[in-house]
Amino acid sequence: MADLNRQLVLRSRPKGLLAPGDLQLTEAALPSLSDGQALARVKYISIDPTMRIWMAIDSYLPAVAIGDVMRAFGFAEVVESRHKDFKKGDKVVGLTNLQDYCLIDSPEKRGSFQKVPSIPFLSDTAFLGVLGITGLTAYFGMVEIGKPQKGETLVVSAAAGATGSIAGQIGKIHGCRVVGIAGGAEKCKWLTEELGFDAAVDYKQADWKEKLAAATPKGIDIDYENVGGEIMHELLERMNLHGRVVLCGLISGYTKGEPALENFSMVLVKRLRVEGFIIMDYMSRYMEAATQLGKWKMFGKLKDRETIVPGLENAPDAINMLFTGGNTGKTIVKV
Amino acid sequence: MADLNRQLVLRSRPKGLLAPGDLQLTEAALPSLSDGQALARVKYISIDPTMRIWMAIDSYLPAVAIGDVMRAFGFAEVVESRHKDFKKGDKVVGLTNLQDYCLIDSPEKRGSFQKVPSIPFLSDTAFLGVLGITGLTAYFGMVEIGKPQKGETLVVSAAAGATGSIAGQIGKIHGCRVVGIAGGAEKCKWLTEELGFDAAVDYKQADWKEKLAAATPKGIDIDYENVGGEIMHELLERMNLHGRVVLCGLISGYTKGEPALENFSMVLVKRLRVEGFIIMDYMSRYMEAATQLGKWKMFGKLKDRETIVPGLENAPDAINMLFTGGNTGKTIVKV
Repeated sequence: MADLNRQLVLRSRPKGLLAPGDLQLTEAALPSLSDGQALARVKYISIDPTMRIWMAIDSYLPAVAIGDVMRAFGFAEVVESRHKDFKKGDKVVGLTNLQDYCLIDSPEKRGSFQKVPSIPFLSDTAFLGVLGITGLTAYFGMVEIGKPQKGETLVVSAAAGATGSIAGQIGKIHGCRVVGIAGGAEKCKWLTEELGFDAAVDYKQADWKEKLAAATPKGIDIDYENVGGEIMHELLERMNLHGRVVLCGLISGYTKGEPALENFSMVLVKRLRVEGFIIMDYMSRYMEAATQLGKWKMFGKLKDRETIVPGLENAPDAINMLFTGGNTGKTIVKV
Repeated sequence: MADLNRQLVLRSRPKGLLAPGDLQLTEAALPSLSDGQALARVKYISIDPTMRIWMAIDSYLPAVAIGDVMRAFGFAEVVESRHKDFKKGDKVVGLTNLQDYCLIDSPEKRGSFQKVPSIPFLSDTAFLGVLGITGLTAYFGMVEIGKPQKGETLVVSAAAGATGSIAGQIGKIHGCRVVGIAGGAEKCKWLTEELGFDAAVDYKQADWKEKLAAATPKGIDIDYENVGGEIMHELLERMNLHGRVVLCGLISGYTKGEPALENFSMVLVKRLRVEGFIIMDYMSRYMEAATQLGKWKMFGKLKDRETIVPGLENAPDAINMLFTGGNTGKTIVKV
């Protein structure tokens, strides 16, 4: 281990996809610890669409300031501690940011850091995926907002993504007919053959709207929406009366200057309930969700896939993959 | 009374506002009654923004067919009956359509017709307004979707309209700070001085957004949305986290070729719940709402105003008034 801390610093707010130089790799000295602080080596970083928002605008969190280390959620291991709650070797998750080492501050400034246990047969990366923010997002979005009922039709956009793939499987566990929308035959095959989706629609095919109609003969009761824009528009058109839209993300707009525009007519005419949510609001219920997700995973009802990108310096490319469709399942940077 | 039945027949689907000839006044013979039917003289017709939708497109009801009498909700009095449930002199509300006389069919085809009582101090038109679809729409939208809590801020768009003016007063009854958006000083004055709104914002003033901000210092918890478009956009921007949008109407788009476009970003970022509803879904709970609304009205907690347009032949102008802001409160055509 070097005594230097590599960091990706935000230098400019991206237009569209991240361009070289938007995030700049720099080196800083390792911080020396004061009482009440701990230092942790970042092992894995969760790459999430929301990071693109953090780079651009104030939203549910303030935009990352130009010159600051880029915000990110990650998995780290404590290497030195003067903090009463953490000792060397402890594994933690929290806002590690895009760097080799992160400082865990005093309790009142500690922020999001939580210790996680070592669980046999469970990889460390699971705490960023199925048992992490990704899994929790799928869980609370489905259980609290989607409220899936047996026999209903659930459509998930960006279904081969980290959250969508879990959300769809939770729909299957609840007895829904589940249709995934994904880009490319390979992803669609993964959804139907490995994850048990009833159908998958490749939105890159010209006739995808007809395929969607064929796959949802009884209309759509729940839209687990990750994409927005044209895909969301088509799903709203096919929603049944009193359907629910779990508004988890709008990634089709994140790399555009202007957000994708939609109209609310279908929400009115079809008496839909559209509800946005941010997983931060549910963190107090982490154990409930993690316990349930863990059981499902243990009994083989939840399968997941990871796209591991090696090297902190490749984090910008990993972020872009989320918007170009280069990833399947959970995207993680191995630091 | 003549033996002829004047009717307004849909001849062409309007572009923008109704043009002369979209609805054509014609005369038909009065229908002769079969067993199980009754004939009623239409007295008052409720003029509602949704009529503009019925003229244009299939929505929650099929579009009115070209050549058919225009669909409308109204108040009528039975003049002749071979129907077991109705006798001469009975007062009814239902889909009378835009005509002098309507046929009440056999029970299985009777549709929406319901008898209404004669209540002292209550005008017949109240069954189209505060105790009718208008009042019910405001009631269920607020109580079931808005769920107003004491101390919350409610903003109502088209607040001087039929539904908006009732919705705002229901918000006051529940202890909300209520801000209305309306066009013109006169309407705004009515809201604050007569209906007890805490503030009113005239959207025709150039600085209305600043005025809205000043009137909602704690943000907006509930948007009772009748308008859509630019007004809704601004309200979404000022919504508080976990706010609710009661999606009652989107009238700014009804006279445009294309619906007003909006983006769902704020719904996501602010974790809003946007719920569309159509009053038809609540008709089985008519008595609950009418009883409550009647009490409020009797005790002076609900005030209403009517814009009465005389003459069936003026119904097209009355419909247009809804979109040009010519009306205040409930718009009714006196046949």
